[in-house]
Amino acid sequence: MSYELEQDATEALKRAFRLHASGVSVITMLGEKNSPVGFTATSMTSLGATPPLASFNVARGSSTWPALDKAEYVAIHTLSQQNLALAQKMAADHTKRFLDDDWTPGPYGLPIFKDATAVVIAKVREKHSVELNAVVIVDVIEGLIGQEVAALIYHGRQYKAVGQSLL
Amino acid sequence: MSYELEQDATEALKRAFRLHASGVSVITMLGEKNSPVGFTATSMTSLGATPPLASFNVARGSSTWPALDKAEYVAIHTLSQQNLALAQKMAADHTKRFLDDDWTPGPYGLPIFKDATAVVIAKVREKHSVELNAVVIVDVIEGLIGQEVAALIYHGRQYKAVGQSLL
Repeated sequence: MSYELEQDATEALKRAFRLHASGVSVITMLGEKNSPVGFTATSMTSLGATPPLASFNVARGSSTWPALDKAEYVAIHTLSQQNLALAQKMAADHTKRFLDDDWTPGPYGLPIFKDATAVVIAKVREKHSVELNAVVIVDVIEGLIGQEVAALIYHGRQYKAVGQSLL
Repeated sequence: MSYELEQDATEALKRAFRLHASGVSVITMLGEKNSPVGFTATSMTSLGATPPLASFNVARGSSTWPALDKAEYVAIHTLSQQNLALAQKMAADHTKRFLDDDWTPGPYGLPIFKDATAVVIAKVREKHSVELNAVVIVDVIEGLIGQEVAALIYHGRQYKAVGQSLL
């Protein structure tokens, strides 16, 4: 083996995850007075198909947490490389995320952005607090299926496109 | 919006996740009589940096679950496109996953495969059962940092390489 030992646990996590790729999604919900709230997530993943479940992780210190902690429903947008600007906007200043004309109210009043590859409408089932973070588990209710475009990837602190098939 | 409504919840999950990309990792542990056990995961993700935490999801009906349910430590290997064969092997027949000469015992006796981009050594902290599945949360202890090679992606039921940067 030609591995370098990194004994600092936080550095080990950071260095390893810089080498790991993640899909990118945008998760939206309704906040106080039914205001639109949302954020870019790189932790969203399937938890099972029978019944259909998904999970994602969030920092409880984030601007989205107060709304998420009370949210009954969420809309999970799976993103393509054509959604780069949306991914960037939803990870930047939270007061500017819903100023543009790129979303509309959808099922359960949830903010739905145009042009995602799909939008999963889901009901919040469980939240588990872990230190300063939470794992959120949702039941999938239905989906809005869009166009198939190469998925957006976050890798090495950069947004990237999916590359060629290896098979 | 030009979305097609998919009202079947399981179909909605499947169709959306075919459009979503995931990074690929291999997670190993010790099973009965200290035998090596492991599997390919597409759900492994960071949960927080302070303290350093990661999470992954697993079916409790999987061949790995009996060992994982008792495991104290796990080794999380982040994979590159050069690890395609390893990803395939660790998702196939569980009796043939450790027959080759591509791994060696490492910290805490954990099976460590050669040539991953990194290996995160972690301690199992919490497991949450959700229907037939479990969310596993681990504390990162240290890391083995390998070579930087383009990460392996799972997308549209195929293994793919990371593509070009969009920035």
